[in-house]
Amino acid sequence: MNENPTITLLTDFGTRDGFIGVMKGVMMQIIPHVRLIDISHDLPPFSISAAAFLNEWSYGYFPQGTIHLCVVDPGVGTRRRVIAVESAGHTFVGPDNGLFTHLFESGETTNTVHITNEKYWLDKISNTFHGRDIFSPVAAYLAKGVSLDEMGEPINDPVLLPFHPLVVMKNRIECRIRYIDRFGNLVTNLDKETFDDWCAQNNCSGNEVVIIGTGQKIDGISKAYGDKERGELLAVFDGFDRLEISVSGGNAVSTTGLAVEDTILVAKSDS
Amino acid sequence: MNENPTITLLTDFGTRDGFIGVMKGVMMQIIPHVRLIDISHDLPPFSISAAAFLNEWSYGYFPQGTIHLCVVDPGVGTRRRVIAVESAGHTFVGPDNGLFTHLFESGETTNTVHITNEKYWLDKISNTFHGRDIFSPVAAYLAKGVSLDEMGEPINDPVLLPFHPLVVMKNRIECRIRYIDRFGNLVTNLDKETFDDWCAQNNCSGNEVVIIGTGQKIDGISKAYGDKERGELLAVFDGFDRLEISVSGGNAVSTTGLAVEDTILVAKSDS
Amino acid sequence: MNENPTITLLTDFGTRDGFIGVMKGVMMQIIPHVRLIDISHDLPPFSISAAAFLNEWSYGYFPQGTIHLCVVDPGVGTRRRVIAVESAGHTFVGPDNGLFTHLFESGETTNTVHITNEKYWLDKISNTFHGRDIFSPVAAYLAKGVSLDEMGEPINDPVLLPFHPLVVMKNRIECRIRYIDRFGNLVTNLDKETFDDWCAQNNCSGNEVVIIGTGQKIDGISKAYGDKERGELLAVFDGFDRLEISVSGGNAVSTTGLAVEDTILVAKSDS
Repeated sequence: MNENPTITLLTDFGTRDGFIGVMKGVMMQIIPHVRLIDISHDLPPFSISAAAFLNEWSYGYFPQGTIHLCVVDPGVGTRRRVIAVESAGHTFVGPDNGLFTHLFESGETTNTVHITNEKYWLDKISNTFHGRDIFSPVAAYLAKGVSLDEMGEPINDPVLLPFHPLVVMKNRIECRIRYIDRFGNLVTNLDKETFDDWCAQNNCSGNEVVIIGTGQKIDGISKAYGDKERGELLAVFDGFDRLEISVSGGNAVSTTGLAVEDTILVAKSDS
Repeated sequence: MNENPTITLLTDFGTRDGFIGVMKGVMMQIIPHVRLIDISHDLPPFSISAAAFLNEWSYGYFPQGTIHLCVVDPGVGTRRRVIAVESAGHTFVGPDNGLFTHLFESGETTNTVHITNEKYWLDKISNTFHGRDIFSPVAAYLAKGVSLDEMGEPINDPVLLPFHPLVVMKNRIECRIRYIDRFGNLVTNLDKETFDDWCAQNNCSGNEVVIIGTGQKIDGISKAYGDKERGELLAVFDGFDRLEISVSGGNAVSTTGLAVEDTILVAKSDS
Repeated sequence: MNENPTITLLTDFGTRDGFIGVMKGVMMQIIPHVRLIDISHDLPPFSISAAAFLNEWSYGYFPQGTIHLCVVDPGVGTRRRVIAVESAGHTFVGPDNGLFTHLFESGETTNTVHITNEKYWLDKISNTFHGRDIFSPVAAYLAKGVSLDEMGEPINDPVLLPFHPLVVMKNRIECRIRYIDRFGNLVTNLDKETFDDWCAQNNCSGNEVVIIGTGQKIDGISKAYGDKERGELLAVFDGFDRLEISVSGGNAVSTTGLAVEDTILVAKSDS
């Protein structure tokens, strides 16, 4: 059993209304010494896409054996399933609504279970707060060492969401804005590895590309936010090696008007 | 003594200005291994009513023996008393301004003490930050095992606030909006148990009632937020069995214009 | 070694985007039992001045031996240095951009090190998220007991920022608004000790002074926020003994239009 059992929490419940405190109380009643780490509770309400994106990019920084509780659950109270997923040495608990699509696409998933054993839930289940009644106690019992198979039945048909794919073509890459952070940085689904491969095939470098959003054009990819003058638009591979559109010392949303799901083109400067 | 001493924190101090961090530092100096759980720090400033409501609905999810620190304290620096209350196996610390009215009305309070023993305060007491100087060290010493009676003198005249009562009549129930959460859900003081009793006496069910706010009418009580189409107004018993007015996938404040303290009527459809 | 190793976190990263969660994951991988306390993550983006101010006023409430991680880092990815500072029994980690000016001015600093030993960094260093890649592991290894001198080379030329000084004259004190808290209180750099000395020399008391901002005048210094009627402007020494301009039960920013860096004059009423 894990000597330092840890549960991370990712929700759209906000921190204002006591929901997260109550969930932590429930978990502490089951495993008093558990360590509870907040990832975010201020996701855009009901945004499964944002939750999936933050989960995908954060879980790997935690020790193996960590339980990741993810609750963005517009279908609470309806017949959507509750699932737990083992992938790459971590365990994930959440609604079966596509939130874990990236895990299933990674090929590292070793077990997916439909959580049905009510023994590991609270006695009374509300229609609207499964975060407290089901997800929290399930995460706590998993942290305490209960096995996934005790919790329900294996399934092989989890819900997958068709997030916009990256389109890599001969002369350009078509990517999408997947997330906007609090600084107003526009984070795309283009990762540096894919970009570097494409560059190699096209005999170009980060200096020789243009990045094009609706009505915006950026020449070259910068090394850091500070590489351009304050107020200037720039493209940069961010701390997670994802292509970002930013404004040095400013806010790229208000500067560009671009939004989540908008397309960004990356092309050779001379093409 | 408690093996896993825990203090919950509920304030209107916000998390932006370092006040909560400083309070935690003070508590850790007194009891280094204490567990500190945030309930909320983003209550509407000075709203004793909101603090009382969140405390009432959250504390029961924590283990008995938990210390609940509640500081919404518009009277800081004036002669209002500092009190600690033992109720239902939990201990509560806060200003004597009505914040704990629900505890005194519950009939489960076993001890109420006016905190006067300065031995358990910081050496220097400011006029404006008793959260740090008095409430935090008192909570920490309680968590460390100091008894309530060491802290001051018992009182039996705590301040009680006349929050709007629930009015149950033969053909209708008059309730009030007590809290608005971050999703814009309007939470009333009508609980499901009272409603079910009233239904039994009036031979009706949740499907056969109308819920009426100023200029708004909702037919029937839904089982879950997802039961209506996105954008539709609905009434639902929420995760704490309180009647809520919501908009499926939306915000009931902007849709209805209703606010805290507004009256909501529940009546039989045919009446 | 510290039995209860503690790291405080002060950043402008916000709590919405998972950055802080990821930093905590990195630290827990290095020292699983470390205690992590948030001071603030919602500083005005890029405001070194606000970070310095909050750090100055908060660190003393934590036990000696605490590690204070401060990351407001507009120069991330450029050649600015990463430093750690030992001062008054505490250790501070952050960018060398003036954030720790108050420590160097205090005369209590015992060691300042330019962090260069990559052994204590993550393997892969991004250009934009040194909070995760450098600052977090350095803080974690310090909490684990690695000595500062292992981390790099001592320096004696840290960056100092010329925050506006307090100007004490015969008949008046000229101070500045250094910080605005979430209640809209305007916090100045005038401390009570300096004010009391000046009063003694000028034979006056807090009742006999006027506080003057642009187009605003306040007679006398109040003892507490509650001393004036709701909505009235007042001056008060706050919980940290700093002169504050406030509105009882209201917001001094919207009432006065004053902003950070604006000058406030304190003078004898009869002068």
